[in-house]
Amino acid sequence: MITALAGGVGAARLLRGLVLCLPSAEVTAIVNTGDDTVLHGLLICPDLDTVTYTLAKMNDDERGWGLAGESWAAMEALERLGGEAWFRLGDRDLATHLYRTQRLSEGALLSEITREITHALGVGARLLPMSDDPVRTRLTLVDGPEIGFQEYFVRRQHSVAVSSVRFEEADRSTAGPGVIEAITDADAVIICPSNPVVSIGPLLAVPGIADALKKRRHEVIAVSPIIAGAALKGPADRLMTELGQEASVVGVARAYTELAGTLVIDDADAALSNDVEATGMRCLVTSTVMRTVDDAERLCRTMLAAVPGVNIAKAQPR
Amino acid sequence: MITALAGGVGAARLLRGLVLCLPSAEVTAIVNTGDDTVLHGLLICPDLDTVTYTLAKMNDDERGWGLAGESWAAMEALERLGGEAWFRLGDRDLATHLYRTQRLSEGALLSEITREITHALGVGARLLPMSDDPVRTRLTLVDGPEIGFQEYFVRRQHSVAVSSVRFEEADRSTAGPGVIEAITDADAVIICPSNPVVSIGPLLAVPGIADALKKRRHEVIAVSPIIAGAALKGPADRLMTELGQEASVVGVARAYTELAGTLVIDDADAALSNDVEATGMRCLVTSTVMRTVDDAERLCRTMLAAVPGVNIAKAQPR
Repeated sequence: MITALAGGVGAARLLRGLVLCLPSAEVTAIVNTGDDTVLHGLLICPDLDTVTYTLAKMNDDERGWGLAGESWAAMEALERLGGEAWFRLGDRDLATHLYRTQRLSEGALLSEITREITHALGVGARLLPMSDDPVRTRLTLVDGPEIGFQEYFVRRQHSVAVSSVRFEEADRSTAGPGVIEAITDADAVIICPSNPVVSIGPLLAVPGIADALKKRRHEVIAVSPIIAGAALKGPADRLMTELGQEASVVGVARAYTELAGTLVIDDADAALSNDVEATGMRCLVTSTVMRTVDDAERLCRTMLAAVPGVNIAKAQPR
Repeated sequence: MITALAGGVGAARLLRGLVLCLPSAEVTAIVNTGDDTVLHGLLICPDLDTVTYTLAKMNDDERGWGLAGESWAAMEALERLGGEAWFRLGDRDLATHLYRTQRLSEGALLSEITREITHALGVGARLLPMSDDPVRTRLTLVDGPEIGFQEYFVRRQHSVAVSSVRFEEADRSTAGPGVIEAITDADAVIICPSNPVVSIGPLLAVPGIADALKKRRHEVIAVSPIIAGAALKGPADRLMTELGQEASVVGVARAYTELAGTLVIDDADAALSNDVEATGMRCLVTSTVMRTVDDAERLCRTMLAAVPGVNIAKAQPR
C-alpha cells in the first residue's frame, strides 16, 4: 500500500507512473480540495478531477487540464449571455460537476461521490478528498483584497503578488473517511511534486494529517516541485518567495523536514543535496521531470526502492 | 400594449405570431414559473426558456423543446457517470441555467436575470416571471405519492393519473415586478392556449393576478388549448378530466369565465359556441391550430380585432 498526497497536474503525472509500478488497488491518493469552488451553482473540484481524468487516461495532456476531445458549446453560449466564462468548463467536464452537485444535494458526501465518479470512469486507484468538509484556500494580495484560489490561479493567472495564504475553515474540518488510516497503514507515503503552499498546504492544515505524517516520517518521501529554483508549472516558486521561503530544494526541504524523512530532488539540483541533508532529510537525487509516462514510472520505481521499509519486490514489473 | 399569460410551447407559438402583429416592445408575457426545478444544482425554468428561445428564433421546432442545432456532450458524459439524465439538458441550453444560477447566487432576482437573458438573445418582447419567489407545481398521483411537475411531465411522461394539483408556496408569493401593472395597463390581455391546470393555474395562484384579470375581464381573451375534446400536445385534456373538469371548450370556458370576457375556440368546436356563451363568455370561433408562424399571426390578428377596446389600427402590417 502506497499513499500519495496530491495536488493537481504534477501529482496526477506521478500517480500515472505509480499505478504502473503497483497494482492500482494498492495506490491511494489523498487529494487537495482547497482549490474547490462553486461556480454557476456547481461544485468544481479541480485537483480531484485532474487526478481522476489523468488516471482514467481521459485528460488532455497538451492543454494540461480538462478532458481530451472536449467541446465548448456551453461556454460559447455562456459568453453570448455575458456570463462569467473565465473558468473554462468543457461540455463533458460539466457533467462531472453536474453529477457531483446533484449527489451533494441528495446528501451524499464528497468522498462517496468521488468513489462513484472514479468507479464509473474505471480508475483503479483509491482517491480520497482530504476532507468532506469545505476548506477554501484564500490568498491576500500585496496590493489588494483577499481572493479565492481560482480567482488567483485562473482568472488572474497567478500574475499578482501574494502577501499571505490561509485555508478557510480548515481548523474546523475533519480528515475524510480513510485519510488518516491511509497514512498510518501505508508502506510508504509520497508527497507529490505539487505546490507546497497551495496544494500540499491545505492538506497539512486539515487536523490530524500532519501529525499522522510525523509519526510515519521515516516512510514519508517528498518530491520537490522546485527544480533549479523554479517550478516547472504554476506559481510555486513565486509564492514561496513572496511568503518568505526560499524557492529552492532547500526551501522545500525546510517546509517538509518535520513530516518527511526523504526529499527527492532533480539532478539539476545535485549540488544542493548536502544543504538538503543539513535540514535533517535524506536526499535522493534523480531525474524528476515527468515529460512522459515512462519518466513518471522510472521516478516512482527509484523512489519506492529508496524508501526504508518498502519492499521493492512488491513493485510489479510492468 | 398587449399582455399575455404564458405557459410553454403553446404560448410561445402564439407569442411568435403576436410580435408580428405589434412592435415587440409592446408585447409583455407573464410566464409560468411553477414548472421550475432545481436539477444538478441549477435552476431550470422551462417555460421562460421555451418562450425566450422561441422569440429569439433559436428553438428547435421539430423536437418541440430546447435549442436548434443543440449538442448533447454533457448529457452523454453524465450518463456515463450514472447521473440523472432523464431531463435532457443540451450543451447550449445548459449555459442558460449556468448563467441564471450564477446570477441568483450573486443576489439577482429571476426577473432581472430574465431581462438579461432575453436582452442578450435579442428578444424584443418583455418577459416577466410570474413571481420572483419560488412557486412549485406539485401533483398527487391517484396511486402514489405527491411529485414535482417535471417528475410528472418529463420523467413519467405524464402517463400517470393525477388526483390533485397544488402550487406550493403560491400563497406566500408576490407577483413579480411589473406583473400586476402589465395586466392593469394593457389594452388587452391574452390567456395563451396553455394547460389551464398546470400552466395557467400557477399564474392564477399568485396573489393579485386573478384579481387584476377580473377587473379587466372585458379586455381579457383566452384561447382554448382544448380542440375537439383533446389537447394538441401534453396532458391538459386528461388532467382536466382527472380533476373533475370537462375536457372541452365548455370546460375551459367554465375555468376562465370569471377572468376573461372572451374565449377563442377552434372551428372544430363551432357547434359548442352556444354552450361557451352560456357560461357568460363571448365566443370567437376561428382556426386556432398554429402549425406555422403564419397561422399564429393570423390567429393573433383575429383576436386583436375582436377584443373590445383594442384599436386594431395599432396593429402594424407585417
